[in-house]
Amino acid sequence: MGNLADYVFNKALYAKAGAREIGKLSSEVKNGILIKMAEKLIEKTDEILSENQKDIANAEQKGLSKALIDRLRLTPQRINDMSIGLKEVASLPDPVGEILKMWRRPNGMMVGRMRVPIGVIAIIYESRPNVTVDAASLCLKAGNAVILRGGSEAFNSNRCLAGIMSETLKQNGVHDGAVTYLDVTDREAINEMLKLDCLIDLIIPRGGEGLIRTVVENSRIPVLKHYKGVCHVYVDNEADLEMAGDICFNAKVQRPATCNAMETMLVHKDIAAEFLPEIATRLRQAGVTLKGCDKTRQILQDIETVSDEDFYKEYLDLILNVKIVESIDDAMTHISQYGSSHSDAIVTKNYAKAMRFLREVDSSAVFVNASTRLNDGYQFGLGAEIGISTDKIHARGPMGLEELTSIKFIVFGSGQVRV
Amino acid sequence: MGNLADYVFNKALYAKAGAREIGKLSSEVKNGILIKMAEKLIEKTDEILSENQKDIANAEQKGLSKALIDRLRLTPQRINDMSIGLKEVASLPDPVGEILKMWRRPNGMMVGRMRVPIGVIAIIYESRPNVTVDAASLCLKAGNAVILRGGSEAFNSNRCLAGIMSETLKQNGVHDGAVTYLDVTDREAINEMLKLDCLIDLIIPRGGEGLIRTVVENSRIPVLKHYKGVCHVYVDNEADLEMAGDICFNAKVQRPATCNAMETMLVHKDIAAEFLPEIATRLRQAGVTLKGCDKTRQILQDIETVSDEDFYKEYLDLILNVKIVESIDDAMTHISQYGSSHSDAIVTKNYAKAMRFLREVDSSAVFVNASTRLNDGYQFGLGAEIGISTDKIHARGPMGLEELTSIKFIVFGSGQVRV
Repeated sequence: MGNLADYVFNKALYAKAGAREIGKLSSEVKNGILIKMAEKLIEKTDEILSENQKDIANAEQKGLSKALIDRLRLTPQRINDMSIGLKEVASLPDPVGEILKMWRRPNGMMVGRMRVPIGVIAIIYESRPNVTVDAASLCLKAGNAVILRGGSEAFNSNRCLAGIMSETLKQNGVHDGAVTYLDVTDREAINEMLKLDCLIDLIIPRGGEGLIRTVVENSRIPVLKHYKGVCHVYVDNEADLEMAGDICFNAKVQRPATCNAMETMLVHKDIAAEFLPEIATRLRQAGVTLKGCDKTRQILQDIETVSDEDFYKEYLDLILNVKIVESIDDAMTHISQYGSSHSDAIVTKNYAKAMRFLREVDSSAVFVNASTRLNDGYQFGLGAEIGISTDKIHARGPMGLEELTSIKFIVFGSGQVRV
Repeated sequence: MGNLADYVFNKALYAKAGAREIGKLSSEVKNGILIKMAEKLIEKTDEILSENQKDIANAEQKGLSKALIDRLRLTPQRINDMSIGLKEVASLPDPVGEILKMWRRPNGMMVGRMRVPIGVIAIIYESRPNVTVDAASLCLKAGNAVILRGGSEAFNSNRCLAGIMSETLKQNGVHDGAVTYLDVTDREAINEMLKLDCLIDLIIPRGGEGLIRTVVENSRIPVLKHYKGVCHVYVDNEADLEMAGDICFNAKVQRPATCNAMETMLVHKDIAAEFLPEIATRLRQAGVTLKGCDKTRQILQDIETVSDEDFYKEYLDLILNVKIVESIDDAMTHISQYGSSHSDAIVTKNYAKAMRFLREVDSSAVFVNASTRLNDGYQFGLGAEIGISTDKIHARGPMGLEELTSIKFIVFGSGQVRV
């Protein structure tokens, strides 16, 4: 293991050297490089496709599922999308150097808080090769070096894409450690990397819960992560039921495989008999399987019983738990017990209940009269998204460029000393 | 170990129940409770002193050092100080509920970012019993439950102080899990606690580097920590040398045992011959031992040679490394290689150099023409300080009440769905 540990250490050391350079660049220079990367991707389309073909061939040989192979596959269209993505990142405002506030102390010194790059960010991800370009470009824009560790299935594609980015850095006189690709598939390389808190400042794992748990258990480096989304819509007795129907339908059906889709619908007892039959019909027509509590099953008699365990499940599928609750308190108690603090919504016309729900529900995004599906960096107007954090520390909810920065104190003095 | 794991799990579960309640309280109620705690400490002075006496007796029996025993010892004056501290925390503005910004999206929904409590914060600390009250009060004020795990030497004192706080919560109708004391001295209890990322949201270790490294290596829970302070003052060739002398003297001498004291003074070659003899005399009169690079020793001939290793040291003592540098770049390269990203200062009259240093030096606080000793929550006007973070994630530099909160997204909608 000595060699692997050394290899990973040297890669991280190289990335740190890159971080020192990229962190000092002006927005103009960073944007210029991102645009050149975008052009380079188009120029090198054939090369990328041929590397990708190797991954596809390997995947077919290993008998991976058609869906997985489709996620791996690059096309001229997908390469073009990545190129456009790079240009979009170039056009976003640069968070680095922003002074959030500044104040004068009684001794005359001015104290401020300034956004600066974090340093070295490692991204550990699975399958889709476009993450290489998307994640790296956001890290670079915020002045960070990035260490990329993709899944073994996309090894050749990822290496090619990362290579194009680091080559562009070099050709523009910037230390190419700022895009560092960890080109070993050995899983042990991840564990070695997770020990390097002296060189790496942040780990962002993107993938299944298994990958994320492994990273959290082994990392000495801070981790920003997304576990799961068990999201709720609570339909209050004072809801506009037409609006409630539209929101619930959207939250479940518009894209059920996403983390911000609703998994459990909570319905106030007083409007259940009126609300449930109609929404049930709509949902079923869209292919949704309903599971209900005993009271729900008195209204929708032909549905399955929901179990206590079901309430903890992230289905990511056209399945919905339905529960009738006594009150907003009952709803919030359910959300706090079974939810994953991701995205939760209330539908109500009552001002006081809206404000209580907003304040008391402890989720990354809390919605009044809007669909949980809107919990997204683009929908919120952040301009970009490197993931949604279910952590409470540093970043919570959609993470844009600001979440890829650190905030330091700056002091303008005129000779002040501590007395 | 099964029993210990269960014990710690149940304590954390109880704290989480407390967190749900304390998180919802109004500022008025929280402040009222903090003031009652302050009064209770005074009322129970005799009880506290008698519990503290047990710790002192144990410490004397174990032959602990006089300095350590002094840190352990409580007096009516020290209890009064804790009581005043509680009232001061009560008087600080409540960060919970603050909406940092709010904006309207094209679909009409209003998106905002709201400060909310983090949840359950565990504090692991050593020796001084006043940390029990200081740290717990800040956590409570920010709406969090706290799990306290103090050092075994102060076991009885800590238990008594935490008991008074949780009793006050109970007497005021608040779930007493909000102040939870881990009353086992077994070190294994810490390891069990560090696995509970399902219940605990943040760990703040306060103590020596050994304790902190152990926590970081074993924790699945995010950690906010303070490693060490290897701080620098760079005296530029365009500095006001009188100001530079005062700042360097203050940074080294005013309280050498603190993390923000200067350990290495970097002096531009052009003013070294003028600046060094005078400051050296002043520092030596204050008892400082100087160690110098070869060029420094040509000016200050009778001092020891500084080694490469010395530049990494946090002396916390009246010892100072002195190095002559060629330029501001040379100084910043030294800081980036040997520093600990804690507190670094430049003394210069040159505007462009001041701005470069401010931007490029990657430390929790960067000073122009002021002493590194000013890196402190009270000096910066935060009103309180639960520690200084050397992390780059979530909190960097002095941590006040704001750093004990999380920021969630809130959405005021009018029926918006994802299209």
